[in-house]
Amino acid sequence: MRRVLWKNARLATLAGREPWGWVEQGALLTEGLTIAWVGPQAGLPAGLQFDEEHDLEGAVVTPGLIDCHTHLVYGGQRAREFELRLQGASYEEIARAGGGIRSSVAATRETDEELLFQLAAARLQSLKAEGLTTVEIKSGYGLSLEAEAKSLRVARRLGREAGVDVLASYLGAHAVPPEFQGRQDEYVEAVCAWMPQLQAQGLVDAVDAFCEGIGFTPEQTRRVFETARRLGLPVKLHAEQLSDQGGTQLACEFKALSCDHLEHLSPAGVLAMAQSGAVAVLLPGAYYFLRDTHLPPIQALREAGVPMAVSTDHNPGTSPTLSILLMLNMACTLFRLTPEEALRGLTVNAAKALGLADRGQLALGQRADFCVWDVSHPNELSYYFGRNPLLLRVRGGIESRP
Amino acid sequence: MRRVLWKNARLATLAGREPWGWVEQGALLTEGLTIAWVGPQAGLPAGLQFDEEHDLEGAVVTPGLIDCHTHLVYGGQRAREFELRLQGASYEEIARAGGGIRSSVAATRETDEELLFQLAAARLQSLKAEGLTTVEIKSGYGLSLEAEAKSLRVARRLGREAGVDVLASYLGAHAVPPEFQGRQDEYVEAVCAWMPQLQAQGLVDAVDAFCEGIGFTPEQTRRVFETARRLGLPVKLHAEQLSDQGGTQLACEFKALSCDHLEHLSPAGVLAMAQSGAVAVLLPGAYYFLRDTHLPPIQALREAGVPMAVSTDHNPGTSPTLSILLMLNMACTLFRLTPEEALRGLTVNAAKALGLADRGQLALGQRADFCVWDVSHPNELSYYFGRNPLLLRVRGGIESRP
Ligand SMILES: [Zn+2]
Ligand SMILES: [Zn+2]
Repeated sequence: MRRVLWKNARLATLAGREPWGWVEQGALLTEGLTIAWVGPQAGLPAGLQFDEEHDLEGAVVTPGLIDCHTHLVYGGQRAREFELRLQGASYEEIARAGGGIRSSVAATRETDEELLFQLAAARLQSLKAEGLTTVEIKSGYGLSLEAEAKSLRVARRLGREAGVDVLASYLGAHAVPPEFQGRQDEYVEAVCAWMPQLQAQGLVDAVDAFCEGIGFTPEQTRRVFETARRLGLPVKLHAEQLSDQGGTQLACEFKALSCDHLEHLSPAGVLAMAQSGAVAVLLPGAYYFLRDTHLPPIQALREAGVPMAVSTDHNPGTSPTLSILLMLNMACTLFRLTPEEALRGLTVNAAKALGLADRGQLALGQRADFCVWDVSHPNELSYYFGRNPLLLRVRGGIESRP
Repeated sequence: MRRVLWKNARLATLAGREPWGWVEQGALLTEGLTIAWVGPQAGLPAGLQFDEEHDLEGAVVTPGLIDCHTHLVYGGQRAREFELRLQGASYEEIARAGGGIRSSVAATRETDEELLFQLAAARLQSLKAEGLTTVEIKSGYGLSLEAEAKSLRVARRLGREAGVDVLASYLGAHAVPPEFQGRQDEYVEAVCAWMPQLQAQGLVDAVDAFCEGIGFTPEQTRRVFETARRLGLPVKLHAEQLSDQGGTQLACEFKALSCDHLEHLSPAGVLAMAQSGAVAVLLPGAYYFLRDTHLPPIQALREAGVPMAVSTDHNPGTSPTLSILLMLNMACTLFRLTPEEALRGLTVNAAKALGLADRGQLALGQRADFCVWDVSHPNELSYYFGRNPLLLRVRGGIESRP
């Protein structure tokens, strides 16, 4: 296997007890897909063999970035709706003009699989240019067996062809499609009935739902989760974004990987997460775009030891962002995470939110996914906003320039 | 002179009475530095001669972007201060750790002119990659004759070498340097005394000041403006950002090009701007980064017919952003401008804020500065955040790819 030595690096390993897992003059050896050695350069074994050597000249190296909550596969976009709202149009006028999530569902159904792939691949390109190496992608704009399968196939194909690892989440319980209008419970039955079929096609890594006053009730969410449990699929939840529904406690009962959004999370919800080990996925882009003013209980999560991840929540309705670095800044500026917490949120804790133990840190045996940055300290990654200092992205030991 | 035809463009000319100055199937002829013809393609004169032809295949074209308020020239950065604040450090602790504007002043004084140029050129590169063609750059981190002259020389050199038009503003009245501590009036005298010397070296296009409780009083600002008037230099002002000082009315008395920030602008200030013709420069990046909650009186400005510009206010303390496109989104999301108002704010009204009548629109005789975008409608430029859809940037008739 190809062995590559990366030396003269300043490493934010995010492993060990040092702040940032910092190694001031570090080196890193990759062997094929994995990290075969990492640590202070002075400690490199004598007589080390390798095929190639890179001098990073003191650049900062972090783990590859992981976006653990996205809705990247959809047809159309909603810029006209954004414009109409700013021109003072009412909710009804926007609905009449074809806006809202239903417009994304209609466009996703109409868009053929090849074009859906091209559109999502272009979006992924923006994220990769800032150091993305692993991404989660949800379905949820198809809302029929056929269109959900199409979306999940696109996610799978992105994982094979787009130069990034993809985990696919089935989010049939995202909204009620027009043909089930007024028959929400029947739609939940359909979502559950489709699940084993999608799983049998190898399209599902996890199951997600939108538990909310304008989404699905905790009881309906429970039915989705029970089906997932029977099939051995892990679950996660869009929880407590607009109101406290107690979805978090429900999700924790099902050993959810993560609970996401959490602006209205209660103390009981924090406790449930701490006890179950679920990751809190914070989505500052949606908070910003919706002009939300109700902050998630960051300090309570921190004190309870709940791991916090950060993600773009890229979607056409409430978070049309394609910058993960901007999410670092927004996590700090809006949610008051420290720069180190924010970076852990896009690396080690994002991996945890996806149930992945093999990435998110620079450590022996981890995947050789990392980023080389033109900064003097990793705190600069969250200080600047709208700047991309990526010099080099390495995924599975293979480097590419942005 | 080289004549180039750009055809099959969808033009947001921002000229004429149509929303966006829209031309659905347009063409544009550049002759050397200027636009020699623009309009519906069907109206192109018969037998038109040109040296080169580009088919834009329906891409959207806007005027080149203009950032009319930046502090791009400085030494160091303040990421550590950002981190300390998020770790809960008090103002005093940050000051003891060497933070605040004084740290930028010290770093700017210490940094040699060549490195200051390289640092600012790298920052400009980020802005250019999103379509910047003209930028204003302020001094104000030197605060001595020597260091202000050095900063302004760097701005001039950027204008010659960085592929972008630069206007230089003298902002000696930005803060009181340590050697004048407790002698603010004497410092203002020095700022005034340096002005003719800097002007004689050809370094000053306009004069700016920071009128604020923590900055300079209206009386001190008046002295700076009177000196500028005697020298025939136009003025502009950092006004009413943190409190209503009445600086706007003062600036309008001196026929200021623009009043900038304006979060605490009073109705009397709005009226003064409407009567004097000053441009309101909105700086949503600083509003965001400072977690301000006091919005500028956008609706009052709109109703009074005050032209609104939008800018990054790039600076290391309160707006370390290097994305002008992000400012489009923030102007809409945070300040509720419409997408068209926001784009006018980065083009035609930004030009007006700089006293430039030769750019900011796609019209006959204007500078051939424009951007070609991978979007289906210009409203997408403000809808996405953290996405750069620039295909081609043309400045003075010369194209470059981002
Ligand atoms: Zn989501
Ligand atoms: Zn400023």
